Amino acid sequence: MVIAGDSGGARAVARCDALGVAPYSDMEGGLFRAWLTPAFAAAQAAVGGWMAEAGMAVRIDAATNLIGRYEGITPDAPALLIGSHIDSVNDAGRYDGPLGVMLGIEAVAALNATGRRLDFPIEVIAFGDEEGSRFPASMLTSRAVAGTLDPAALAVADRDGVTLDEALVAYQQLVAGWQSKREDEPAFSGITDFRMAGRTSALAYLEAHIEQGPVLEAEGLALGIVTGIAAQLRYQVEVRGMAGHAGTTTMKLRRDALAAAAEAVLAVERVARDQASDLVATVGRLSVAPGAPNVIPGCVDFTIDVRSGDQGVRDKAAKTILAELDAIAARRGVSISAEQVQDLAASPCDPGLTGWLADAVAAEGLPVRRLVSGAGHDAMVMAALCPTAMLFIRCAGGISHHPAEHVDPADADAALKAMLGFIDRLGENV
Amino acid sequence: MVIAGDSGGARAVARCDALGVAPYSDMEGGLFRAWLTPAFAAAQAAVGGWMAEAGMAVRIDAATNLIGRYEGITPDAPALLIGSHIDSVNDAGRYDGPLGVMLGIEAVAALNATGRRLDFPIEVIAFGDEEGSRFPASMLTSRAVAGTLDPAALAVADRDGVTLDEALVAYQQLVAGWQSKREDEPAFSGITDFRMAGRTSALAYLEAHIEQGPVLEAEGLALGIVTGIAAQLRYQVEVRGMAGHAGTTTMKLRRDALAAAAEAVLAVERVARDQASDLVATVGRLSVAPGAPNVIPGCVDFTIDVRSGDQGVRDKAAKTILAELDAIAARRGVSISAEQVQDLAASPCDPGLTGWLADAVAAEGLPVRRLVSGAGHDAMVMAALCPTAMLFIRCAGGISHHPAEHVDPADADAALKAMLGFIDRLGENV
Repeated sequence: MVIAGDSGGARAVARCDALGVAPYSDMEGGLFRAWLTPAFAAAQAAVGGWMAEAGMAVRIDAATNLIGRYEGITPDAPALLIGSHIDSVNDAGRYDGPLGVMLGIEAVAALNATGRRLDFPIEVIAFGDEEGSRFPASMLTSRAVAGTLDPAALAVADRDGVTLDEALVAYQQLVAGWQSKREDEPAFSGITDFRMAGRTSALAYLEAHIEQGPVLEAEGLALGIVTGIAAQLRYQVEVRGMAGHAGTTTMKLRRDALAAAAEAVLAVERVARDQASDLVATVGRLSVAPGAPNVIPGCVDFTIDVRSGDQGVRDKAAKTILAELDAIAARRGVSISAEQVQDLAASPCDPGLTGWLADAVAAEGLPVRRLVSGAGHDAMVMAALCPTAMLFIRCAGGISHHPAEHVDPADADAALKAMLGFIDRLGENV
Repeated sequence: MVIAGDSGGARAVARCDALGVAPYSDMEGGLFRAWLTPAFAAAQAAVGGWMAEAGMAVRIDAATNLIGRYEGITPDAPALLIGSHIDSVNDAGRYDGPLGVMLGIEAVAALNATGRRLDFPIEVIAFGDEEGSRFPASMLTSRAVAGTLDPAALAVADRDGVTLDEALVAYQQLVAGWQSKREDEPAFSGITDFRMAGRTSALAYLEAHIEQGPVLEAEGLALGIVTGIAAQLRYQVEVRGMAGHAGTTTMKLRRDALAAAAEAVLAVERVARDQASDLVATVGRLSVAPGAPNVIPGCVDFTIDVRSGDQGVRDKAAKTILAELDAIAARRGVSISAEQVQDLAASPCDPGLTGWLADAVAAEGLPVRRLVSGAGHDAMVMAALCPTAMLFIRCAGGISHHPAEHVDPADADAALKAMLGFIDRLGENV
């Protein structure tokens, strides 16, 4: 499939668009490309073709990652990995994932066009599963490459009861020739090989990705330098008051669980706002029982999600929020219990690589805006394997995981130039 | 069934307790006595027996109400009606409804014990349906007596698809002899007769009922004088903000529908609290979309219920609340729309009757506490037929519609004495 574009960035965007429809989507009238599906296989074939066209040797590893390799001057030197994922959520946008892969291909294509090689090889990786698009587990394929896969994570089955092992074997038939593209690969044996996928000797990992948030757009910036993936805490909170008849219980005698929860929601918001940092805190789910118009709520359950690039900031905010909950409970005569259900450590990007990426952005005449990624990405996983850097690209309205997801081709082109600048600087410094 | 008690009030409570189990309940291990069921028929038989024992002539009217008549000196004089209902909600308490009927029987029993008759007859009515216990409509039987039944309200079917007409015909077979207890009743013809049930010439209606709220208990009072049934307004509110990723959207850029709704919940509470009147306002149902821990809520729906005995107070409060919603919407950049879905006018009790009831309470040496009923009762319906008065009896913790519902026999006895004092005063004044 030949996709044209005025520039490398425009072609990268156009290729994402081309992948947004059948046969690269399994969803009528929209995009859904779950891992190991026919649509996924079709996308791998198309992307593999573009990799080859850019001068890369193409293979699929034991974890089903599609990898294009552009040799360096020293063939066995550790590789610069440039990657992102090509699976998608249901009814997805077209750029979350694929754009980073396409920009990696464009970067190699630009080098290849002038016959330029660096001392190190470059491998562009199209990861298979980042979204948890088919199984109730995410980032399985980057974890395989990084070597951090807990075997327990592989004991999963999809909605139809198909296990990961069965899906891998079936995929071997779907993609004729998988595992035979490199003659030195052993016969594929499903999950066992899957876990052994990570045998790449890596110098660094670079990922370009749409921001999936509104910050860059709000500040009129095309690009942002990710300083790290935010640390995250999640709580499940239960407020127990006293249900009662909405008509017969005077205001003074109420112990309204929802009114208490409302104060908690506003406290969560206020604590995060007052920080004036990258801290965000969210009550995303809330349910009321018994939930009838004429009954004072007796019980309310809700979630709290707290994130910051700085674990200390996050933990201090969480502590303040929990203290606020206690104060609300005492003041209102209700009980509030908060259970911590998730604690993800911050995953900082490498300061050296990040500095070169920032220099590359500045060299394009663009402001250097550093920001924390509140969402998780393959880069977070790859940090276990090698130093990482990550570039955010503005997306319209901050909208993502939605068909309205949109990227300006000019922004993609700016990203491509910054990536090439980064590769230059990496080449000068290793 | 003979139920003993140290006093009339204690016996009334004991009789309610006796009706709380099989065969007077259709629920294993709890009380559920839906209208026109075998449990309901069994309860009618027992209550009818107690009416007869108290010196009353017993009949079941065309609307299935059980009526005991204690003749007055002038037989054709309009009757004092004393009533409440004997149906129950599912997993009910034992006193919501039956206690008022039992106290009516005890009042007549006390008169009959000394052979005393008033100028007017007394009819004790055990209404069949107040709770909407079987059909999706409530107070059908008091509406039949009051003559306010909209024929459209009778086009109902229960959960099993049995229509009201079918249930009435079946009930005729369940209760052998119904419609033949008075020889002057015409042959029963289902719904047609049901609507014609209200042929009683009424002087006044008196209802004793548990408070179903915590006010009397909080003030250490056994009894309360109901001044009327509250006027009620109900709104369905929709808040539309902007959904977003909880990790990638900075606090400053959010338009969080739940945070806006939380402010609205607190505004509703504050407006009602500030009134320092009988005004109550409640958000009882609230739902959040999309409702995921990692997504900023984009849309929140909730209900507002506003009640006061004074329609002006209610309407002023509703206006203030709606203005607060507008202010929240403007301040937060979200849209908030409120649709009025219910408007029930206040139903005041008769000031003259209420005064006599208050005098009777005072004569017992008890404080006179006047209060508005936030909940609906048969008295609200009967007000269309004749002047009404209503007496509230303290219930433990304000708990109702729950097996834990509890009434102190001493309070029931105080209520009985007040009812007898009311009958005396009515006798002196008509």
